[in-house]
Amino acid sequence: QSVLSVQKTMNPKRPCKRFILYYHDILLNGTDTSNATSAAATTPTKLGDFVFGLLVVFDDPVTKNQNPQSPPAAQAQGFYFYDMKTTYNAWFAYTLIFNSTEHKGTINIMGADMMMEKTRDLSVVGGTGDFFMARGIATFETDAVEGFKYFRLKMDIKLYECY
Amino acid sequence: QSVLSVQKTMNPKRPCKRFILYYHDILLNGTDTSNATSAAATTPTKLGDFVFGLLVVFDDPVTKNQNPQSPPAAQAQGFYFYDMKTTYNAWFAYTLIFNSTEHKGTINIMGADMMMEKTRDLSVVGGTGDFFMARGIATFETDAVEGFKYFRLKMDIKLYECY
Amino acid sequence: QSVLSVQKTMNPKRPCKRFILYYHDILLNGTDTSNATSAAATTPTKLGDFVFGLLVVFDDPVTKNQNPQSPPAAQAQGFYFYDMKTTYNAWFAYTLIFNSTEHKGTINIMGADMMMEKTRDLSVVGGTGDFFMARGIATFETDAVEGFKYFRLKMDIKLYECY
Repeated sequence: QSVLSVQKTMNPKRPCKRFILYYHDILLNGTDTSNATSAAATTPTKLGDFVFGLLVVFDDPVTKNQNPQSPPAAQAQGFYFYDMKTTYNAWFAYTLIFNSTEHKGTINIMGADMMMEKTRDLSVVGGTGDFFMARGIATFETDAVEGFKYFRLKMDIKLYECY
Repeated sequence: QSVLSVQKTMNPKRPCKRFILYYHDILLNGTDTSNATSAAATTPTKLGDFVFGLLVVFDDPVTKNQNPQSPPAAQAQGFYFYDMKTTYNAWFAYTLIFNSTEHKGTINIMGADMMMEKTRDLSVVGGTGDFFMARGIATFETDAVEGFKYFRLKMDIKLYECY
Repeated sequence: QSVLSVQKTMNPKRPCKRFILYYHDILLNGTDTSNATSAAATTPTKLGDFVFGLLVVFDDPVTKNQNPQSPPAAQAQGFYFYDMKTTYNAWFAYTLIFNSTEHKGTINIMGADMMMEKTRDLSVVGGTGDFFMARGIATFETDAVEGFKYFRLKMDIKLYECY
């Protein structure tokens, strides 16, 4: 048994690593391929009026501040889909890919994005590179919405297993 | 290093938390939007005769007993798709959302649902709220099937990491 | 607290279990259902020229050597989709299903497959059966590509939590 260096804190208030990032999603409207960073891979089903079943694949920039033009700290690659018939609500699975002087590696995240809640928690289920074997919580908060054209999420990533 | 309270039992027979839940899936048949709790986001491919590639998004009630009309203990939000050409077989990823006096929080689950096996194990890959940082096993058992209209799964959720 | 037997090594160079497997994907071209092991569940979007949004469901054999005709060591069931507008790039979530005299159980994996990198790491987020509660890293390396007809990945699976 050889443990290099382990930091494990199971106090929700004391993650061993934390960063706050802003996720920017610009959905393809059919023509604006130069700006768009995501596109719908399916069409909405007939279940309710909130695009139930619409699945969006994304390769979205993630930045340290709210400005979408600020330099990306990471890319978020993955998908989300809408899954409620009574309101807008989504489910996400994606990878944060870091490739900077600061961080190299990935963080894998999945969970429910209950958009009607002020904040909601998803699971950090794994990591690679600088985030080798990480686990934790990703807290989402909607930061801006412009219809189906653009939305911004604040992602508060807290790791409780750091190696 | 600050560990609040950790219970970790790695004996498969001795989970630190366990609950048995019934999952009810009523697939939209094109018109019955009032009862339906799930809908097909894609159409089957031409690979075999078992709807290979059909992907279903769901927001399904989960109850403590087999009766679909009993009060929901949680919501299951996520998706499954069929993925074999020689038999019905599926793959699931979803979140159990608890919002009751008993439990508040989520449990994230993914894995293969080999429908032809009597029971099959999926992974609990994370949790939030009352299930902060949980990991474990979700054992599926088919409890009822009515064609593509309705099916019920018994989900035996066993957590081996509880904080 | 009852721990049956735990092996936990957090040195990236010293997994507690490791195996190298080859994944073979033969995409349905519309007619060849006898050989095909995967099929496109969606069509590409208009975002870029690299089939952004194309989602493929697979039930692929996994073998111990490069020969697709060698006896399967496991089945890989899950999906991938393409997610970049400037190059071919994918995202995977799947289950390795072992059902041999050697191993019985499953391993659940998700993460980004940055195809332009020589090797890329995904997360092993859970396991069942012989791989009860496993976690680790799956390193992908492209081993062969024949357009959209066939590709082969070398998967170097390293577990760091073994029970």
